[in-house]
Amino acid sequence: MSKVAVLIADLFEDMEYTQPAAALKKAGHDLVHVGLKAHQTVKGKSQGTPVTIDRAVQDARMDDFDALLIPGGYSPDKLRADDDAAALAGDFVRKGKPVFAICHGPQLLITADVLRGRTVTGWKSIVQDLKNAGTRFLDEVVVEDGNLVTSRHPSDIPAFIRKMLSKLDQ
Amino acid sequence: MSKVAVLIADLFEDMEYTQPAAALKKAGHDLVHVGLKAHQTVKGKSQGTPVTIDRAVQDARMDDFDALLIPGGYSPDKLRADDDAAALAGDFVRKGKPVFAICHGPQLLITADVLRGRTVTGWKSIVQDLKNAGTRFLDEVVVEDGNLVTSRHPSDIPAFIRKMLSKLDQ
Repeated sequence: MSKVAVLIADLFEDMEYTQPAAALKKAGHDLVHVGLKAHQTVKGKSQGTPVTIDRAVQDARMDDFDALLIPGGYSPDKLRADDDAAALAGDFVRKGKPVFAICHGPQLLITADVLRGRTVTGWKSIVQDLKNAGTRFLDEVVVEDGNLVTSRHPSDIPAFIRKMLSKLDQ
Repeated sequence: MSKVAVLIADLFEDMEYTQPAAALKKAGHDLVHVGLKAHQTVKGKSQGTPVTIDRAVQDARMDDFDALLIPGGYSPDKLRADDDAAALAGDFVRKGKPVFAICHGPQLLITADVLRGRTVTGWKSIVQDLKNAGTRFLDEVVVEDGNLVTSRHPSDIPAFIRKMLSKLDQ
């Protein structure tokens, strides 16, 4: 079973956290919520789902985890303004550990500048940002490129979860 | 006096709209609020300031206005997912009409792909997006490059307003 870091801040898209998180737990994986401030409770933008941060980004190391999940909404925008959060996300990509990013999630990987030459998808508003970051953008439900798994929006969640779980089983 | 289009959607940063809008009106300029749906009331993300949309983006033409104001917050993220909104913003830049964008405002210009070779500033979270879009990024209170005036965040508003008003007086 894997130990998965969930990089999350206020205004995350509720179901892009709740559904992947539930599927990961059901499959026996452990989740550690990493955010801007330990013990803070952050909330989802649609239903106000509360999530308590287990560990601050500056105290989190990529070596402590097997994989990374980045839910969407406006959470990635808040995280990418923090140098430690962007660096942590970049470490997972560079090390080749599985990274699951949905909707606005890939924004954090743009700031970490680890997407050049990669094939990805993401929410419509960030398409030009992804292209400018050197990616090949595909308008598909879920895109897998090596350790990187990306999806576009909440409707893609079932396919995103299937790919995520199969990746952790490899 | 100028006719200024304000491109705005839900979750705009209240004071990045209210303060520039008040200064423009006080100086005698006319504002037309352009958004995703005419007659809709959109709200600010911090204080819930209500703004009624005068004209839908698909019915707005750059030729009808003298200048464009793009407040920040998450409003630009919503607008850039709309092809007409991005095209409209791009038209102002290409035509050389004054464009005032603060905080996340320049995101809309990235989607319109009109920033290559330009010198700009913007909110910290979008710095890498701005660089990848081909801009020279400056971490300054206000940056003027031809018809383009950009600022970083709410603290920059007084300088942003001064530059905006002097630009409209030229």
